[in-house]
Amino acid sequence: MYTYLDTVEYPSDVKKISPDKLPGLCADLRNFIIDTVSRHPGHFAAGLGVVELTVALHYVYNTPYDQIVWDVGHQAYAHKILTGRKYKFNTLRSYHGMSPFPNRDESPYDAFTVGHASTSISSALGLAVAAEKMGRHDQHVIAVIGDGAMTGGMAFEALNNAGIQKSNLLVILNDNHMAIDPTAGAFNDYLLDITTSKTYNRVKDDVWDILGRFNRLGPKTRNFLAKIENGIKYVVLKRSNLFEGLGLRYFGPVDGHDVLHLVQILSDLKKIKGPKILHILTTKGKGYKFAEENQTKWHATSSAFNIKTGQTLPSKVSQPQGPKYQDVFGKTITELAEKNNKIIGITPAMPTGCSLNIMAAKYPDRVYDVGIAEEHAVTFAAGMAAQGLVPYCNIYSTFMQRAYDQIIHDVCLPKLPVILCLDRAGLVGADGATHQGAFDISFLRHIPNITVSAPMDEVELRNLLYTAQLPSKGPFSIRYPRGNGNNPDWQKTFSEIEIGKGRTISDGEDIAIITIGTAGLLAQKACAILKEKNIFPAHYDMRFIKPLDTELLDFIFKKYKKIITVEDNALQGGFGSSILEYAADNNYHINIKRLGIPDRFIEHGTQDQLYANCGFSPETIVAEVENKLKN
Amino acid sequence: MYTYLDTVEYPSDVKKISPDKLPGLCADLRNFIIDTVSRHPGHFAAGLGVVELTVALHYVYNTPYDQIVWDVGHQAYAHKILTGRKYKFNTLRSYHGMSPFPNRDESPYDAFTVGHASTSISSALGLAVAAEKMGRHDQHVIAVIGDGAMTGGMAFEALNNAGIQKSNLLVILNDNHMAIDPTAGAFNDYLLDITTSKTYNRVKDDVWDILGRFNRLGPKTRNFLAKIENGIKYVVLKRSNLFEGLGLRYFGPVDGHDVLHLVQILSDLKKIKGPKILHILTTKGKGYKFAEENQTKWHATSSAFNIKTGQTLPSKVSQPQGPKYQDVFGKTITELAEKNNKIIGITPAMPTGCSLNIMAAKYPDRVYDVGIAEEHAVTFAAGMAAQGLVPYCNIYSTFMQRAYDQIIHDVCLPKLPVILCLDRAGLVGADGATHQGAFDISFLRHIPNITVSAPMDEVELRNLLYTAQLPSKGPFSIRYPRGNGNNPDWQKTFSEIEIGKGRTISDGEDIAIITIGTAGLLAQKACAILKEKNIFPAHYDMRFIKPLDTELLDFIFKKYKKIITVEDNALQGGFGSSILEYAADNNYHINIKRLGIPDRFIEHGTQDQLYANCGFSPETIVAEVENKLKN
Repeated sequence: MYTYLDTVEYPSDVKKISPDKLPGLCADLRNFIIDTVSRHPGHFAAGLGVVELTVALHYVYNTPYDQIVWDVGHQAYAHKILTGRKYKFNTLRSYHGMSPFPNRDESPYDAFTVGHASTSISSALGLAVAAEKMGRHDQHVIAVIGDGAMTGGMAFEALNNAGIQKSNLLVILNDNHMAIDPTAGAFNDYLLDITTSKTYNRVKDDVWDILGRFNRLGPKTRNFLAKIENGIKYVVLKRSNLFEGLGLRYFGPVDGHDVLHLVQILSDLKKIKGPKILHILTTKGKGYKFAEENQTKWHATSSAFNIKTGQTLPSKVSQPQGPKYQDVFGKTITELAEKNNKIIGITPAMPTGCSLNIMAAKYPDRVYDVGIAEEHAVTFAAGMAAQGLVPYCNIYSTFMQRAYDQIIHDVCLPKLPVILCLDRAGLVGADGATHQGAFDISFLRHIPNITVSAPMDEVELRNLLYTAQLPSKGPFSIRYPRGNGNNPDWQKTFSEIEIGKGRTISDGEDIAIITIGTAGLLAQKACAILKEKNIFPAHYDMRFIKPLDTELLDFIFKKYKKIITVEDNALQGGFGSSILEYAADNNYHINIKRLGIPDRFIEHGTQDQLYANCGFSPETIVAEVENKLKN
Repeated sequence: MYTYLDTVEYPSDVKKISPDKLPGLCADLRNFIIDTVSRHPGHFAAGLGVVELTVALHYVYNTPYDQIVWDVGHQAYAHKILTGRKYKFNTLRSYHGMSPFPNRDESPYDAFTVGHASTSISSALGLAVAAEKMGRHDQHVIAVIGDGAMTGGMAFEALNNAGIQKSNLLVILNDNHMAIDPTAGAFNDYLLDITTSKTYNRVKDDVWDILGRFNRLGPKTRNFLAKIENGIKYVVLKRSNLFEGLGLRYFGPVDGHDVLHLVQILSDLKKIKGPKILHILTTKGKGYKFAEENQTKWHATSSAFNIKTGQTLPSKVSQPQGPKYQDVFGKTITELAEKNNKIIGITPAMPTGCSLNIMAAKYPDRVYDVGIAEEHAVTFAAGMAAQGLVPYCNIYSTFMQRAYDQIIHDVCLPKLPVILCLDRAGLVGADGATHQGAFDISFLRHIPNITVSAPMDEVELRNLLYTAQLPSKGPFSIRYPRGNGNNPDWQKTFSEIEIGKGRTISDGEDIAIITIGTAGLLAQKACAILKEKNIFPAHYDMRFIKPLDTELLDFIFKKYKKIITVEDNALQGGFGSSILEYAADNNYHINIKRLGIPDRFIEHGTQDQLYANCGFSPETIVAEVENKLKN
C-alpha cells in the first residue's frame, strides 16, 4: 500500500525511480517509519529528520561500495529500510531482531558499527584515507553527524586531522539544533549565526548557482570555478567559517528536506576532491506534527502510540510499582540542593535522559548542560570541587567510558569530591551492545581513592546520594540501572550510610549469595522461589565494591562453605573478582561461583531476557544454588 | 649569584621588583633552569619558552588566590621556582623529591594537578564558574595551554562550554607550533595563518593601542571601547576567528617573550569580563641555543649535559645492554612494513616518543601523526582496519586511558584488527603519578574480543608485533615498558607466537611464580638470587592475559600448591585476578599470592625504586617466596 516504497528493497531499486517521484518515496518512507514505530517503540524524531537525506544519499552514491557512516545511528531507520531490512523492520530493538543502530555484522550497507556519539568523522576519515591508500580513488565516504554530536571533542580531533588529509571525505552536518535536548554550547550559537547571516547566504546562493552549472562543464572549468567560489567566499567572509579555518571546504547551509536539491548538491559534491563539509538544516520529527512540536519527548518512544492523537497506548506489560531510578536521582538531588547550596548538577547533553531537568526547573543556574562532552563534564566538575562546590556529574555508564582517564587523572589522583552518578549501569535492554553499562565496576574499582557504590533499591540510592555530599567523602561513584524500582514509598527521611558497610538481607543455611546493586533484587526473587522449595540461602547486599566490607566478608567466609556472587557487570575484573581477591589475600579457600555478564558483547532484548541470557536471572540463580548444594 | 632571583622566593617578592628589572629576573630564571636541568634531567624546552609569561602572570595576578592552571605542566618549572620551591628544585623528579608536574598536594600555588594534555580549560572553567557561584567576583582563573594540547578534543569541548558561560576565564594559548614533535593538524595551519595575516595584525595593533589606554579610563568607557574593538574586528574580519566563532573574545597574537608588554596586556585583560583568549607566540627552548635549534630533542633531557657544548655527559649508572623497547617497536614495524604493504603507523603526537619516526623516515606516507588526539587515533585506526589495512596505533599506556571507550565501541565490538601498542606500560619512573601505566591490563582484559598480550623481553615483543599482523587475529594489544631491555642480540628471524600460549622459563619445586610481561625479568633475577640459597621456584611467563593459557594453568595448579603472580600493573582486576578467576571457576583451591601495583597512586622515582616500593622488586619477590615456603 506504499506506491513507491513497495517497489524498493535495495538502493538499486531507489536508483530506478525518476527524480520527480523521489518526494513520493520520501513520503512513503516517513509513513512507514511512523506506522512501524507507533507499534514497535524506538528512536523516532531524528530518523524522520533525515528521510530526504537518506534517499538522496542512496540515489547519488553507489552503496555499499561508497560508505555512509551515521553518527550515533539512531537516525538510520530510513537507511535500514532502503538497504534490505524493510521486512524485518518490525523486529526492531527486540530480542534477536533488527539491531537498533547500524551494525557491520548486520549489513554490508552499515559501513561502521555505531551507537555512541561523535565517532563518525574519525572512522569515516579512516575509511577514506584507506580507500585512497588502496587505490580506490572512486570510492566515496560520507559521515553524517548531528550538531549535537559535533560538540564532542572527538569530532573536533577528527576535523583537525581531516583538514590536512587529501582524501575524499564528505562530512554532512545535519543541523537541527537538537541533541536529545536542545544542543548546548557556543558551537550551536555559531551555527545559528551562519544560518541566519544574510551576507553569508547571499554568497552561498551564488556558489550554488555556479555549482548548479557544473554538470555541463568539464573538469578543468569546474576546478577553476571552485577556486573562484572559494575566492569569493574568502573575500566576502574573510575565512569567517570555523570549518574552513580547519582546512575543510564548507558548503551550505541548505534545506535538508528538499530531496531534489539534495540530489543535485550531492551529485555536484561528488566531483569536488578533498575533505569537505555540507551543512544541511533539518527539523527533528519532520512530518509528524506532535514530534515536531515536542522534539525531546519524541526523540524515542517507549511504548506504542495512536498515530492520529499522539497518545501513548496502554502497555500490555504490568505497570511498574516504583519510580524510575533516574527520577529517584532527579528528585533527590533537587531536595538535597535545597538543603546544601554548594550542590551543582552537571550533565553532558542528557538533562531529560537523566532527570536532572527536575533540578534545572527549580535551580536553573545550578545545572550545567555542557554538550555531548563527557571528558569535559568530569574535569569541569573536578574544577568546581577544587573550589569547594559539590558537583554531581551524571553520565550513563556506557558514556562514562569516555571519561575514564579524567576520572583517574582529574578526580581521583587529586582526591576531589566529585560525585559520579552512573545511570543505565548494567544491561540496558533494547539499546543493545553499544549501550550496555557492562564495564563500570571493572573500570572504576582499580582506581585509587574512589568510593565505588551500587544501591540495591530506591531507598538505598536516595541514601547514597545523600551520603556522598556529606563532608570529606572524596571521589564517590554511584551506579544504578535503567528502568523502574519496586517501591512507591521510597521518599523516606535521609539516612547516612557508613562507607564500606554492606547489609544482611537474610541469614541462611549452607550457602550465601553476595550481591551488589540491583542484582540483589534478582537474588531476592531467587530466594523467594527457593523458599518454596525449602531452601534457605543467605543473602548479603554489599552496597560498596570499594571499599569492601571486610568484616562482613570475614563473617560470611567463616560461616559458609559455598558462595555465589551476583552482579549486573562484566565478570572479568568485576565485583565477584574483588571478592575472590579478598578471599585469596586472606587465605580463605572457599567455593565461590560468580554470576554476571559473560565475556562477550550482549545484544538487545528486554532486560529480563538479557539477565536470563547472561545467567543471572532469578531462575538461573535458583538453578545455580540447587546445583551448588548438590555438589 | 643571581642578581634578581636571589631576592625572590614567592610571588610577593616578584611584585616588589620594579617593572624595568623584570627582564633581568627572566634572565636569572632561565639560567637557573638551564643550570639545574643540566645536572638533574627533566623537561626542558617548554619551560624555557614560558619564563616571561610566568613572571608576568605572578607579577599581575594575586596568586594563589588567583589560580593558574598549566596544561600538561611540563612547562611549569619557572612557576615552581617562583612559588616557594626554589630550594628543592634540584630534587626535581627524584624519589621523594619535587614532583615533575604541578600538584595540588605539593603547593597551594598549583591550582590543579596535571600531567595529561588538554585538561586545563575544563578544570579552569570549573574553577572560574565556581568562583562566580561562590561570590568571589575578584578571583581570576587562567589556563595556559599549548597549541599542541589545543588539538585534544577535550580542549574543544571546554571552549564550546566556556563560550556560553560568563565567568572570568582567561585562556592563554601558548603557541610555539610544537608539541614534543611539531604540532600536527589543520588547527596549526590556522594559527600560522592568523599569525602571519597582515590585515589581522593591523587590526590587532589598533586594538592593543586602545587597550593600552584602558588604565586611564573608567569602566563604562572601557566597556564601550571593548565593544567598538569587537565591532572593528567583526567588520574587518567577518568573525574570521575560530575562537570568536565559539563565543570567546580573542586577543593577539603577541610576542610571548616581551615580559613588559605581557605585564601590560595581562593588566588590561584583568579588567575585561567574561571568557577570553590571549594568543602568545613563543619559542620552545628560548634562550638556549641548542634547544631552540632542536626542539624535539630538547623537549626533555634524560641525562646531565654540558651547558656550553650541549653534549650529554657520561651517565654514572651502568649502561643498558639492550635496546630501548620503543626502538624495538620502531625498528620492527619498519621491517614488517617492508614485507606487508597494508601496515600503517598511527601516533597521537608522539612520533619521536614512540620511535614511529623510524618508520616515518622510510615510509612517510604510511605514518599518521594525528595530533594529541587519542580518541580519534583509535577510531581512525578502526576505520582503516575496516577497509583491510593493518594499523598499529601506538599510545603510551597512561594516554590510552583516553581511548578506553573507543577501544570498546569502535575496535572490539566490531572485531576490527587494530593493533594497539601500549608503550610506557607499568611503572614509568620519573614522570610520576600522572604517567604511570598502572591500569591497562585491568582496563583491557574485561573487553570482549581482544587479545591482550605483554612480552617479557625484546625478542618476544618483536614476535608479538609480527604475530599481530598475521591474518585473522582481530583486535590485539601489546604492552611494554619504558626503558631498555637486556638483549643486544634481539633482531632474530620472525616467529609466530600461538595466541594464548604461555611458556615455561624454568620448572621447579614446591612453588611457582607466574608472571606477565617484563615483570618476568624481575622474577628471573629473584630466581637467580634464590638459586644461591638452594631454592628453586618454577617460573612461567604467560605472555597473554587474554586468552589465558588454560592448559598451562591446569598443569601449574595440579603441580604446585603455592603460587605467586607478578605483574607491573594494578592488583585490582589485573593479571593476578584473572588467575584467581580461572582458579575459582575451575574449583582449584590453591594458595595464590599476587604481587603488583597496590591500590594507591605511585609517585616518581627510578623504576627500580618504585618496584621495591610496590613490593615486586627482585628482592621483595625473593622475600615472598621464602615467606610462602615457611607458611
